[in-house]
Amino acid sequence: MELIHFENDYSDGAHPEVLRRLVETNGESTAVYSEDIYCQEAARRILALCQNDHAAVHFLPGGTITNTVLIASALLPYQGVVSSAVGHIHVHETGAVEARGHKVLTLPSKDGKIAAEEIHALYRAHTDDPNREHTVMPGMVYLTDPTEYGALYTRSELAAIRDVCRRCGLYLYIDGARLGYALTAEKNDLTLPDLAELADAFSIGGTKQGALLGEALVITHDALKKNFRYAMKQSGALLAKGRILGVQFLALFENNLYFRTSAEANRKAARIAEELAALGYSFLVPPATNQLFPVFSGRELAELSKKYSFCPMGRVGDDAFCVRICTNWATRDEDVNALLNDIAALRS
Amino acid sequence: MELIHFENDYSDGAHPEVLRRLVETNGESTAVYSEDIYCQEAARRILALCQNDHAAVHFLPGGTITNTVLIASALLPYQGVVSSAVGHIHVHETGAVEARGHKVLTLPSKDGKIAAEEIHALYRAHTDDPNREHTVMPGMVYLTDPTEYGALYTRSELAAIRDVCRRCGLYLYIDGARLGYALTAEKNDLTLPDLAELADAFSIGGTKQGALLGEALVITHDALKKNFRYAMKQSGALLAKGRILGVQFLALFENNLYFRTSAEANRKAARIAEELAALGYSFLVPPATNQLFPVFSGRELAELSKKYSFCPMGRVGDDAFCVRICTNWATRDEDVNALLNDIAALRS
Amino acid sequence: MELIHFENDYSDGAHPEVLRRLVETNGESTAVYSEDIYCQEAARRILALCQNDHAAVHFLPGGTITNTVLIASALLPYQGVVSSAVGHIHVHETGAVEARGHKVLTLPSKDGKIAAEEIHALYRAHTDDPNREHTVMPGMVYLTDPTEYGALYTRSELAAIRDVCRRCGLYLYIDGARLGYALTAEKNDLTLPDLAELADAFSIGGTKQGALLGEALVITHDALKKNFRYAMKQSGALLAKGRILGVQFLALFENNLYFRTSAEANRKAARIAEELAALGYSFLVPPATNQLFPVFSGRELAELSKKYSFCPMGRVGDDAFCVRICTNWATRDEDVNALLNDIAALRS
Amino acid sequence: MELIHFENDYSDGAHPEVLRRLVETNGESTAVYSEDIYCQEAARRILALCQNDHAAVHFLPGGTITNTVLIASALLPYQGVVSSAVGHIHVHETGAVEARGHKVLTLPSKDGKIAAEEIHALYRAHTDDPNREHTVMPGMVYLTDPTEYGALYTRSELAAIRDVCRRCGLYLYIDGARLGYALTAEKNDLTLPDLAELADAFSIGGTKQGALLGEALVITHDALKKNFRYAMKQSGALLAKGRILGVQFLALFENNLYFRTSAEANRKAARIAEELAALGYSFLVPPATNQLFPVFSGRELAELSKKYSFCPMGRVGDDAFCVRICTNWATRDEDVNALLNDIAALRS
Repeated sequence: MELIHFENDYSDGAHPEVLRRLVETNGESTAVYSEDIYCQEAARRILALCQNDHAAVHFLPGGTITNTVLIASALLPYQGVVSSAVGHIHVHETGAVEARGHKVLTLPSKDGKIAAEEIHALYRAHTDDPNREHTVMPGMVYLTDPTEYGALYTRSELAAIRDVCRRCGLYLYIDGARLGYALTAEKNDLTLPDLAELADAFSIGGTKQGALLGEALVITHDALKKNFRYAMKQSGALLAKGRILGVQFLALFENNLYFRTSAEANRKAARIAEELAALGYSFLVPPATNQLFPVFSGRELAELSKKYSFCPMGRVGDDAFCVRICTNWATRDEDVNALLNDIAALRS
Repeated sequence: MELIHFENDYSDGAHPEVLRRLVETNGESTAVYSEDIYCQEAARRILALCQNDHAAVHFLPGGTITNTVLIASALLPYQGVVSSAVGHIHVHETGAVEARGHKVLTLPSKDGKIAAEEIHALYRAHTDDPNREHTVMPGMVYLTDPTEYGALYTRSELAAIRDVCRRCGLYLYIDGARLGYALTAEKNDLTLPDLAELADAFSIGGTKQGALLGEALVITHDALKKNFRYAMKQSGALLAKGRILGVQFLALFENNLYFRTSAEANRKAARIAEELAALGYSFLVPPATNQLFPVFSGRELAELSKKYSFCPMGRVGDDAFCVRICTNWATRDEDVNALLNDIAALRS
Repeated sequence: MELIHFENDYSDGAHPEVLRRLVETNGESTAVYSEDIYCQEAARRILALCQNDHAAVHFLPGGTITNTVLIASALLPYQGVVSSAVGHIHVHETGAVEARGHKVLTLPSKDGKIAAEEIHALYRAHTDDPNREHTVMPGMVYLTDPTEYGALYTRSELAAIRDVCRRCGLYLYIDGARLGYALTAEKNDLTLPDLAELADAFSIGGTKQGALLGEALVITHDALKKNFRYAMKQSGALLAKGRILGVQFLALFENNLYFRTSAEANRKAARIAEELAALGYSFLVPPATNQLFPVFSGRELAELSKKYSFCPMGRVGDDAFCVRICTNWATRDEDVNALLNDIAALRS
Repeated sequence: MELIHFENDYSDGAHPEVLRRLVETNGESTAVYSEDIYCQEAARRILALCQNDHAAVHFLPGGTITNTVLIASALLPYQGVVSSAVGHIHVHETGAVEARGHKVLTLPSKDGKIAAEEIHALYRAHTDDPNREHTVMPGMVYLTDPTEYGALYTRSELAAIRDVCRRCGLYLYIDGARLGYALTAEKNDLTLPDLAELADAFSIGGTKQGALLGEALVITHDALKKNFRYAMKQSGALLAKGRILGVQFLALFENNLYFRTSAEANRKAARIAEELAALGYSFLVPPATNQLFPVFSGRELAELSKKYSFCPMGRVGDDAFCVRICTNWATRDEDVNALLNDIAALRS
C-alpha cells in the first residue's frame, strides 16, 4: 500500500488551474527567455498586488538558484550574507552561496527567526573591530517567511529589521519559498505591499504552492535590478521557454488562486494542529502555517509510519521524535480525517 | 500580422505527446528531486538506447546549467576546457564557466567543429612549455554536435578526438542541445551507442526538441559520475519536482518520438535548403540539420522580414546578409511552402 | 614615548641570522619562481627534520594564502573544510576559503581545539542524512597547532583525529603559523616527524618566527602534491624571486635557529605567566606557548596601556578584560622585567 | 661554467640601496599589515611624484596577485576584462582572473598593444547585441606598459583609450610590472602624472626593478579605492610585515633610484639593439625598452647558448629563432661587451 503523503509540499504535480493554463497556451509561439507576454503579464499582476510600479519581477526555475543569483549579484566579493543558523541557504543548498564566493554569517534563531537587535550587534561587532578588514563584511540580511520551521515574522519585527538594514547599509532579502502560507496564516499581519516596501528583494515561491516549478523574484532596490538578466543567464537561470514560468504565475495570481490554495492548506494544517494539541501532543515550534512539527513517542511514530509518510526531524527527547507534517493544495480532507482518526486511536 | 517564426527552435511549447504525458501524470504524488519513477524509467530507456548499462543519467533544467555543472565538477581549479572559438560556452553563456573558476581555451573552428590534431597541438604546446604552471592546464574538450552552425561530426572525426583525449588525459564532453537533429541527419553516421562509447559525458537536449524544458545528461566516466547530485544541487539544478523532466524525457524516448520529430524537422529544413540552392542562394555553412544559414541581399531580406522572422547572423559581404532559419517539430508544411514561394518570387 | 610591544609576534623585522643570509646571497643570480638552490636546500633540510623523503615542500608568502591555496586545491566543489568556530580561516581571513568556493563547517572548540569524536559526529551527521546532497560534504579537517589561543594538541589527540580522518576519507591539514612555539613548548609531545606522519599537509610559519615573510608548506599526501605549483601560481603565491623564501627558511632551519628562538620566546612567556599566576591573575586559556591571555581589571589595563601595547580580546566579566600578550625572538629581557615590575606594582 | 644571464629581469636580488634600507630598518618594531610609517611614507612619495593627492596606494607582494585583486574587486559578476590576446593576465597567470569568476575578453594586438578603436568596437558589438545578456559584459580594459613585448604606448594612444573607456563606462587599469623601463625609455612621452590622470588604477612594479618583491598599486578611481584592504586580505595579499614593501618602495623612490636604474638598463639594452641592428639582425618587435626580441639562426643560437642564457620565444621562420634578452639594474657592462663581441664574431 502506498503511503499517504504528508512529508512535504512538493511531491504533487501542478494545481489543475495551473496545468490548464499550460495546456491552453501550449500551441502558441512566443518570445523566448522570459520576454513573452505571459511573463510580462504575470509580472504586471504581481506588481499590482504589491502596489508597486517600479519594482522588477523575474521568474527563475527554483528556490536555490533564486537565492544564489540574487545574493551573488548583490554582494561585493568580500561581503557575506547574514542568516539564521538554520537558514535554508546555510544548511540546505550544498554551499551554493559559498560556491559563488560568499560566506554565510550566522545568527542564532528562535524557530528560524532572527531579530533586529542581533543583526545590529553583528554589524556593530564588525565595524567596531579595528581589524575588520580581516573579517567578512556583512552586506545583506537573508530571512525566510515563513521560516524553515513554519514561524512567521510580524510586520513590526520586519520593520525593525528593515530599519537596522537601512541604518547599516545592508540589503534585506526575504526568501518566500512558502510565502503564500505566510500571507494567509491566521496570525499573519503582513501583506504583499508591506513586503515590497520593507524588502529590497523577496521571492514568491511557486514550486511549493501549486506550480510545477518556478519562483517569482520581486526586486525593489534599483541597484539590485540593474543587469539582473545577465546574472540569471550566467547561472543558467534564464529558461529558453521562460513563458512556462510566466503562464504558471499568471494562473496563480489570477482569481486569487495562490492565496485561496494557501489559505486552504493552512486551514487543514490548523485542524491537525488543534486536534493534536487537544490530544496533548507538543510541538517543536508553535503551529502557524502549513508546516507542523509535532512530537511523537517512538511507538506512536512507528505505528503512524505504516500508513503515512512524514519528514523525520530527529529525536528531541528520550522517547520523543519530531516529524514535519505538511499540507498543500492537494491535501485531501479524507486523508486529514484518516490521520486524525489514527492519531486519536493511538491515545485511546 | 504576426510573423511566421523561423528564427529559432524553442519558441513553441511542448510537443503534444510530451504535454499529454505531463497532464496524465499530474495527479500523482511522487518522490522528489528526480528520484521518482519517471526519471528512473526515462534514464533506463536512454541507457538502453545507448546500449550502456553502467552510465549515469541526470535531468537538468537547461543547457547552460547542464554545461556549467558538468564542466565545473570535472575540472581541477587550474584546469580549463578546450572549445571552438564559437562554442556556446565561450560566447553565449555569459561567462558561466568562468564564473565557476575556469578558463575556456579556444581553438579555431570550421563551421563550429574542432579537429583532433588541433586539440593535440594545444595540449602539446602546454606540456612542452617549461613554464606551463603559469598557464591554464587543459582538462576537458567541449564540443557541440550538431555545432552552433548546424555542422556534424563524423564517427571517425569523433573517434580521432576521442583518441587524442585518452592519450592526453582530457575528458571529452559533447553538448547535444540539438542532438536529435544530428542523429537523424542524412549525412550523420553517429549513433547513441557511439556517443556513449566515445564521450565521457554528453547531453541530450530536450528544450529545442519538443520538451518545455530539460536536458538529459549521460555520464559514462566513473570519475564524473561520483557525487554528481551534490554538484547539481549546489548549482540549483536539482528541481524539487524533478519528475516533470523525467516524464518529458520518457515521452520523448517512448515510441521514438525524439527521433521522429527531429527527422521530420530535418526534412523540412532540407526542402528549404534544396530550393534555395536551386535558386542560386549560397550558405554560410553547408546545410546539414535543422539550422540553415542562407545569405540574402539586403532587399531580399527586407522583403522577407515583413512576413517571416529569422535570426540575423550579420553582414557577410557588400550586400550580403546571413540569417539563421530553424525548423522544429512544430514547423508547419504550409509555412514552409509560403516561405519557398515567397523566396522564389524574389528572384523571378 | 613609544609603547613597548607585546601585542603580537610580527611587528619586528627578520631575525639577524635570517637577515644576514639574505644579505650574503643578495648578489647572486639564481633560478626563479622557487626553483633556485636555496628553496631546494631549505626543502631538503625540512624533509630531513621530518624524517620523510617523499613529501613536497613549497614556500608561500603568507599564512592566509597558504591556507587558501592548499584548501582550495584539495576540496571538490561541493566539499567544505571542518574547522573550530574560532579557526583562523573562519574568522580572520576575510572569507578567503569561501571566495574560492568552499564552506567552512564549524565545530565548537575548547581553547581553539577540536576533538576527534566531534569530527566524527559531524561526518556521521552528513552521511546519515538521506538528503545529504543538499548539504556540504566535509572534505578536510583544518586545525591550528598551537591554536589561536595558544593551546596545544597532544600526540594522542592528533592521532585520534588522524584516525577519524582516515576512516572518513577526510584530509587533515594543520596550520602551523606558530608551529615552532608549539614544538618547543614545555607540555608539547609532538615532533616534526609526527606531524609528517599524521597530517596530509601542514605549514611551518616563518612570518611570526623570525622571517620577513613566508610559510613553508609540507605536503605528504600524494594527491595533494600533484600540480601544486599551478595552484600557487593561479593564486599569486609563486614569487618571482622565490629564493628569498628559500634563503630565509634555510637560515631558520640551519643551526636549529627556528627551535632555539621559539623556545626562548616560550620561556619568556612562561616567566610572565608564572608571575601573573603568582599574583593571582587568571587566564582565559591556560598558558602554554608564546601567547598569553591574562585578564585584568579596567583600571589595571588602563594603567599598563600607558606603557605597553597588548592585543585587546574583549570584556570577559564585569570589570574583567582579556588581552593577548605575545613574546617572540625579539622580546627583550628588560622589557619583560619592566612589565613584570609594573604588574607587581599594580597589586601592591 | 655558469651562464651569463640575459633571460629575464628578476633573477637577481635586491638593488644594494634597497637592501641597505631593509637592513637599516630591520631592528625597528612597526605597525603591521602595511599601516606602518614606511608604507605611509612610500605612498606619500609616490603620490607626490604622480602630482595627485587623492589617490590610494597599496603595496602587494607580486604582479599576478596585484592584477587579480584589482580586477576581481572592480568587476561585477557578469563582467569581463578586455585584454590583448597576449596579455599577461590572459596567458601567463594560470587563469587567475577566471579563478575569481571573470572572463578575459581578448583583442588582437600589435606588439602587445591594443587600440582605442578596437576597444570601442568590442564594446559596441556587445551593446548592439539584442541578446547581450547572453554574453559577458566588458567592465574594464587591462593593458601593460611596456607590453609583454617591450612596446610602449604613446600619450595620445593612451588618451584615446581613456576617452573610449570613459564613454563606455569601462575602468582602465594599466599593469606596470616594468613601468620604470617604459617611463625612462627614449621614445616614451608618458609621465607618472599622466598615468594618474589617465588610468583608474595602475601598478608600479618593484620585483623586476630592484626590489626583492612587491608592486605598488595606485588607485585613482574612488569606487575602486573603497574597502580595497578587504579585497587584499581575502586574497592573501596583505603581508603581516607589510613594512618590507614600504621600505623597499621608499628606497626605490628616494633619490630617483627607480628611474636611474631603469634608464641605465634601457641604455644597455639600446647598445645591444643598435649593435645587433648594425650587424643585420632583425627583431620580432622594434626595440624600445629593456626587453629585446632578436632573431638568430639555429647555429647562432646554439653557439651563443653555450655562454649566455636567453628566454626562448619560439621558431619564427625556417631557420629563425626568436629569444628575449633582458637587461636590468644588475646587468654588467662587461657582460654586455662579451655578448656583443661574441655576436659580432658569429657574423665575421
